[in-house]
Amino acid sequence: MTSISIIGAGNMATAIGARAAAHGHSVEIMSRDSSKARAAADQIGAAATVGEYGAKPVGDIVFLAVLSAGAVDIVTHYGDALAGKILIETTNPFNEDASGVVTTPGNSITQQIAAVAPESTQVMKAFNTVFRNVLVVDQPLDVFFAGGDPAARTQVAKFLETLDMRPLDTGGLESTHALEWAGILLMGLARNGAGFGAALGAK
Amino acid sequence: MTSISIIGAGNMATAIGARAAAHGHSVEIMSRDSSKARAAADQIGAAATVGEYGAKPVGDIVFLAVLSAGAVDIVTHYGDALAGKILIETTNPFNEDASGVVTTPGNSITQQIAAVAPESTQVMKAFNTVFRNVLVVDQPLDVFFAGGDPAARTQVAKFLETLDMRPLDTGGLESTHALEWAGILLMGLARNGAGFGAALGAK
Repeated sequence: MTSISIIGAGNMATAIGARAAAHGHSVEIMSRDSSKARAAADQIGAAATVGEYGAKPVGDIVFLAVLSAGAVDIVTHYGDALAGKILIETTNPFNEDASGVVTTPGNSITQQIAAVAPESTQVMKAFNTVFRNVLVVDQPLDVFFAGGDPAARTQVAKFLETLDMRPLDTGGLESTHALEWAGILLMGLARNGAGFGAALGAK
Repeated sequence: MTSISIIGAGNMATAIGARAAAHGHSVEIMSRDSSKARAAADQIGAAATVGEYGAKPVGDIVFLAVLSAGAVDIVTHYGDALAGKILIETTNPFNEDASGVVTTPGNSITQQIAAVAPESTQVMKAFNTVFRNVLVVDQPLDVFFAGGDPAARTQVAKFLETLDMRPLDTGGLESTHALEWAGILLMGLARNGAGFGAALGAK
């Protein structure tokens, strides 16, 4: 059993939390809007608690499940509370019509977050290639991830396996921009016949 | 049985040709170096012939299996000989250490090729997410592709199915830059434990 924390209380936060809870983990939900955090925790069930927004997360692994536009500010707000944690951001920085990303090579949202996070925080990207409605189905899934150091990636890989996922390690922070484009690739796939139930690597 | 043409005589050209021949198609190999074209055709076997470099290809589907740096010049050289064809370019425009691509959004190699190709040519990208040593193994494969119009993509999808591949349509030309980044994602995956026998979507 692992204790994880999730910053965010939207659909993606609830989907990650529910999957973790279904596989025996405990989940802390943190949101600026405490009533939304309460509602998300209630939806996840008995394994979920509500944490104080901005305080030190309980979990060693912290998911950031918010919109890309606010991600950097939220991590700045948390500051030293995230020291020593593995921080997994899940955002897709799509442009207006989701035909491309608003980030540039070497400056992915993950890299922007790493620039403001404590030095001891292992900042990673995962789940941006898994649509919420794929995540909520109890099926094996491929999950691409990148960022942090190899030890952190090994720890995350082990955790993902407990969620019935195949962890696909694509490298350090420098690989996170390619993952952002993979989100666009998946949008193209979904829009051209595969539908939004499609995931990279799903059969 | 479909008749395809392949411009190029390197490893990727031979791998595509061999897979097509193994599934009952005939293959025309075209290369600036006619002795290399001959050697590639011999390797592919009886289903393969050598075509004249720069002449009108026999196949309705033409693969461009060359290095990205020379792709645009080769298509310019072919010019009107490619009118009415489906042209599938397979390049990965990697930067020096394959940590990113040398192209920019809206100006993928595929888009650069489309700009110099005849208007009636359906320019597409495929196979750049399938490493050669994955392609040569006789196993089912996921193949992402993009470009051209929906009718051309439907035709290509049907052809890919005859090669024991699952065609994954990711959209028109605007999606080809995301496919170029998918090549980088795959490099990251290969370098971080999966090895170069890995393919997007392989199990």
